[in-house]
Amino acid sequence: MQNGSGHFLPAVSIDNVIFGFHQNELTVLLLQAKSNQRWMLPGGFIGKEEDLDAAAARILTARTSLTNVFLQQFHVFGSAKRNRKEHLGEVLRTLGIELTAESWFMQRFITIGYYALVNYEQVIPQPDETSLTCCWQDVRKLPLMLFDHEHIIAKALQVLRLQLNYQPIGYTLLPKEFPLKSLQTIYETILGRKLDRSNFNRKLLSYGILEKKEKHYTGAAHKAPFLYSFREDMYFKALENGLEKDF
Amino acid sequence: MQNGSGHFLPAVSIDNVIFGFHQNELTVLLLQAKSNQRWMLPGGFIGKEEDLDAAAARILTARTSLTNVFLQQFHVFGSAKRNRKEHLGEVLRTLGIELTAESWFMQRFITIGYYALVNYEQVIPQPDETSLTCCWQDVRKLPLMLFDHEHIIAKALQVLRLQLNYQPIGYTLLPKEFPLKSLQTIYETILGRKLDRSNFNRKLLSYGILEKKEKHYTGAAHKAPFLYSFREDMYFKALENGLEKDF
Repeated sequence: MQNGSGHFLPAVSIDNVIFGFHQNELTVLLLQAKSNQRWMLPGGFIGKEEDLDAAAARILTARTSLTNVFLQQFHVFGSAKRNRKEHLGEVLRTLGIELTAESWFMQRFITIGYYALVNYEQVIPQPDETSLTCCWQDVRKLPLMLFDHEHIIAKALQVLRLQLNYQPIGYTLLPKEFPLKSLQTIYETILGRKLDRSNFNRKLLSYGILEKKEKHYTGAAHKAPFLYSFREDMYFKALENGLEKDF
Repeated sequence: MQNGSGHFLPAVSIDNVIFGFHQNELTVLLLQAKSNQRWMLPGGFIGKEEDLDAAAARILTARTSLTNVFLQQFHVFGSAKRNRKEHLGEVLRTLGIELTAESWFMQRFITIGYYALVNYEQVIPQPDETSLTCCWQDVRKLPLMLFDHEHIIAKALQVLRLQLNYQPIGYTLLPKEFPLKSLQTIYETILGRKLDRSNFNRKLLSYGILEKKEKHYTGAAHKAPFLYSFREDMYFKALENGLEKDF
């Protein structure tokens, strides 16, 4: 990392937007730089002989201790002005890298955005040595960010919301059996608005990805909701080809 | 182009997948290399001070003479093994570039895929000086391709099909007023299968992006279909936010 030019591809970086869901909160995993206290996405560079997807996974694990997260590409950020030199200088100083116009880190970088959605209770993030801390932050109240990282998060959220229209969601966020209300809460949290319960149920059941299970007896039996589980074959088929449309 | 290192970012390229639609055919715009007769996508490199999206548009125009095409990023291809050295050697020879291990062109490239869908009767493609020809080819019967370009086209087609589930389509492909049957033909051509007419009509009308116009009298008046036009405000809102879902 001290001498990027030896080990990494030039001009390209990766930034990971990890959304954390729990109950009705949507958060994003950020690191705070020791150098200038700005917050940043867990990002890094691509090894000269490393596949792009493998690099994204390695960077996420190295910087946050998260493993086995299903990362998806969502957008490439390629504005010529996107990495601002004044931020870079501050970050490089803390890393002990001398700041010269020829520094490998001073070049223009195109960054490839990856995102994921995880249950944030199941993971314990830890920072690397360049960061003060690594923790979950509310997506609606982001702290002061490095470079264009706030824009990258906004774009990831836009893509995640679009994705609700054509891909199933929830498999890694819910227990094996769950009431439909829990799935609705995930949609509502991502969309940032309430949904009509009967419309939601009708729509989700029409996709053929859910299987009805036993009633969930809680004592207040007259209110016990049915439990559902995902039909794994249909769920993963829909991830690949999109949710069934009836045209 | 002869000395890429002076003008372009290293390690990153762009490849454009331009789908052409007309009547019930789906084609893709390809160039045939003078060097080895293999076919390739119109691609190129990013200027050191050039925005990524601007580079994609410039490359498309320079290599094919197409202008004002709405290009969208769809995927980044980052396998470490994707540009095969034996193909590169053949291409470089024709360009008059000496093939050495240090050649700028011999480095590993990550390529960013852009795609578009155009009415192929409205454009006259022309090749640049490195290509024998530039023409539309049937996506179902591709000729022998360079590198991983066949894989790139397959991925673009997969994304285009997914996109039908959440984005409107057809604005640039149809005349101002059209029967619903014409829109259905676009969907059928992209999906490669027939659709049920009444389901299709009900679904498309439910999105709120279409406005009913006068009947189209053709002489056989009892069969005259209604014409429709796109409601531009709703169409472009749906391009941004996705088609309205009723959950």
